[in-house]
Amino acid sequence: MIMTRLDSSSDPPLPDAGEPAASPAPALGDDATARACLTAVAEPGDPALGLLLDEHGAAAVWQALRDGGTPQPPPGVRPQDLAKRAARWRGRAAGLDPDTLLGATAELGSRLIVPGDPGWPTQLDQLGQRRPYALWVRGAHDLRHACLRSVAIVGARAASAYGLHVAADLAWGLGQRSWAVVSGGAYGIDSAAHRGSLAAGAPAVAVLACGLDLAYPRGNENLFADIAARGALVSEHPPGAPPSRHGFLVRNRIIAALTPGTVIVEAGLRSGALNTARHGQDLHRAVMAVPGPITSALSAGCHRLLRDGAAVCVTGTDDVVEQVGRIGADLRPEHGGTALDPDSLDGTARRVLDAVPDRACAGTASIAQTCGLDLDTALSSLGLLAAAGFIERGPSGWRARRPPRRPSG
Amino acid sequence: MIMTRLDSSSDPPLPDAGEPAASPAPALGDDATARACLTAVAEPGDPALGLLLDEHGAAAVWQALRDGGTPQPPPGVRPQDLAKRAARWRGRAAGLDPDTLLGATAELGSRLIVPGDPGWPTQLDQLGQRRPYALWVRGAHDLRHACLRSVAIVGARAASAYGLHVAADLAWGLGQRSWAVVSGGAYGIDSAAHRGSLAAGAPAVAVLACGLDLAYPRGNENLFADIAARGALVSEHPPGAPPSRHGFLVRNRIIAALTPGTVIVEAGLRSGALNTARHGQDLHRAVMAVPGPITSALSAGCHRLLRDGAAVCVTGTDDVVEQVGRIGADLRPEHGGTALDPDSLDGTARRVLDAVPDRACAGTASIAQTCGLDLDTALSSLGLLAAAGFIERGPSGWRARRPPRRPSG
Repeated sequence: MIMTRLDSSSDPPLPDAGEPAASPAPALGDDATARACLTAVAEPGDPALGLLLDEHGAAAVWQALRDGGTPQPPPGVRPQDLAKRAARWRGRAAGLDPDTLLGATAELGSRLIVPGDPGWPTQLDQLGQRRPYALWVRGAHDLRHACLRSVAIVGARAASAYGLHVAADLAWGLGQRSWAVVSGGAYGIDSAAHRGSLAAGAPAVAVLACGLDLAYPRGNENLFADIAARGALVSEHPPGAPPSRHGFLVRNRIIAALTPGTVIVEAGLRSGALNTARHGQDLHRAVMAVPGPITSALSAGCHRLLRDGAAVCVTGTDDVVEQVGRIGADLRPEHGGTALDPDSLDGTARRVLDAVPDRACAGTASIAQTCGLDLDTALSSLGLLAAAGFIERGPSGWRARRPPRRPSG
Repeated sequence: MIMTRLDSSSDPPLPDAGEPAASPAPALGDDATARACLTAVAEPGDPALGLLLDEHGAAAVWQALRDGGTPQPPPGVRPQDLAKRAARWRGRAAGLDPDTLLGATAELGSRLIVPGDPGWPTQLDQLGQRRPYALWVRGAHDLRHACLRSVAIVGARAASAYGLHVAADLAWGLGQRSWAVVSGGAYGIDSAAHRGSLAAGAPAVAVLACGLDLAYPRGNENLFADIAARGALVSEHPPGAPPSRHGFLVRNRIIAALTPGTVIVEAGLRSGALNTARHGQDLHRAVMAVPGPITSALSAGCHRLLRDGAAVCVTGTDDVVEQVGRIGADLRPEHGGTALDPDSLDGTARRVLDAVPDRACAGTASIAQTCGLDLDTALSSLGLLAAAGFIERGPSGWRARRPPRRPSG
């Protein structure tokens, strides 16, 4: 544990307002550092803090708390509510060493991304005041690019053999068509979906409800390592934060927001997956449910969504792609197609795309050289282009994605 | 076989127009006899004949054919189309003896009902020009009354154990709540639904696509006997008519039209049950589908209906009743409730209802005596009142249906 959580009843004495904190001064002017610290002291997805951040910026909010004060309440937040929160946050902030927090982040092999970073998944901005303050990400894959073409697959922990089969098969089929899977880290449907996605060579994205070092549940340690190696592990909780019931529920909003659509594979009537479905509805994402035997309580939640018209019935990869695919791209895969308009590519991506051969494959270094870019920049652009469906990995490097019906030369 | 079907290539010489037919003159002025004969010479559900019957009446149409002529084409029917049909019908009419047909009807223990008869299920009138010309009915139960509170349950012949279980269970649950089941006579879902309905003591209604004497498939002979004894066997085909593919498809419109809603339990993508669902949609009936494993081809038709929004997802009796029940009646069974407004009852039914005791039971004879009616009239009214949910069978006769939550005294 790299931080101590204190409840307000055992708050240490607060420094007087304006008096500098006793701990070594962090780079408080740094928005990212301030956001990292705020994730360690505030409850995730608190709309009051979201409004505060919009109003004052993270650095100012953090500075005020460190100074023992309370930031000016933004419109929509009652002063007495904010005062209670600020007291709680200050109590926790007193025990927090930002350097230790950022050190643990680096030690974990994880990185911090915050709104405004190039890698920030801007889809999350639709959460408004409930947007995560920051995200910890572990894994080589660019989170934003992976989620451009992704589907959330969620469901019961204690899934049936049927549910596990369906989740893995659906994720595999989506992976075959270059769609990533986003899910939680639980046993059952979540794990089966990640395994299917990884088996198809697609990036799997797991959004955890605890610090990335804790990787709950422990039995999924190997799976999490695979996901970190070939996809991305994501959390809005700092290293050391243990899982909590509240954390699981607010985590679901991130899964729904990262993806254009959520598939519920098996869910009882009180399943957390139904909470993800509701977030998806609120965000105007596609919400899909896989039917099952009416004799199975594990499908009752899916059937209720279908009966109430809250989800579309999907029975395979084609149905899912039809719901989340874009017209002209995935709906007509025989004509190739991409998830982004080519005109929306920036100059660098455009240059990299032009350097990718049509037929043979070219390696990253060769492409970087062709367009006069350093390796990292080229790799980042190649990742975007692949995620958006412009290019694909071939046997010996990258090549343009071609209409499958044209004879290969 | 009590009639000979001849195709036009082997037509016997037609009598000259206006010359009386050679066979003994039937009671041609009789609408019912004329309709019975027309079912034996025309294809079922022919809209041209439907329009002809509306325009001229059955007796006149039959007379014209027997006279070797062609009825005047009604608006909407092209003369050349009608001439071709009339030639075909006259050919068959020449080999038909109405007395033999009506004799066979009586021998079978069946009765003929035609539009306008008190027992005619007026729901079928919504079929318009595709309304059956007449129906043969075998069974003590009044068809119209049984279908007031009924649900069609249809599906695959080669059903799975899952489908058979669901169909029987659903029909049983509906029967427990005094809802009859209407279906075809096939093996699989149809048979399972009838058995479930009969097991709950509810009337099962089987609509066959052949003459009631042929009772296809033969292996269901015992089931058909049970249905005739405790529900109703129905056909728009005269005795002796063999089953045909066309007959099955047009039969499905009757199943859909007789009931306020159709449940598809298991259906492949090319199942005849989907044809029944389409008839249900056309008639603005409730169309419901039971989901199943997406790994089962037998549920693929159900899932397509759900995906396309052509059916509502139902998983049990409550879901079905919610779709077909009437507000104030079945939607709130704890308050009792009926399928008909009590004010819509005629004077006789009202008198009979008043004579049915609230707590103890009374036999039919005793009720008939109380209200000064003959036994048949009383029994017919009691059937209506039971079907509409006003009364129920108790251990020793009839009693009023009471709210289940009131203590019984």
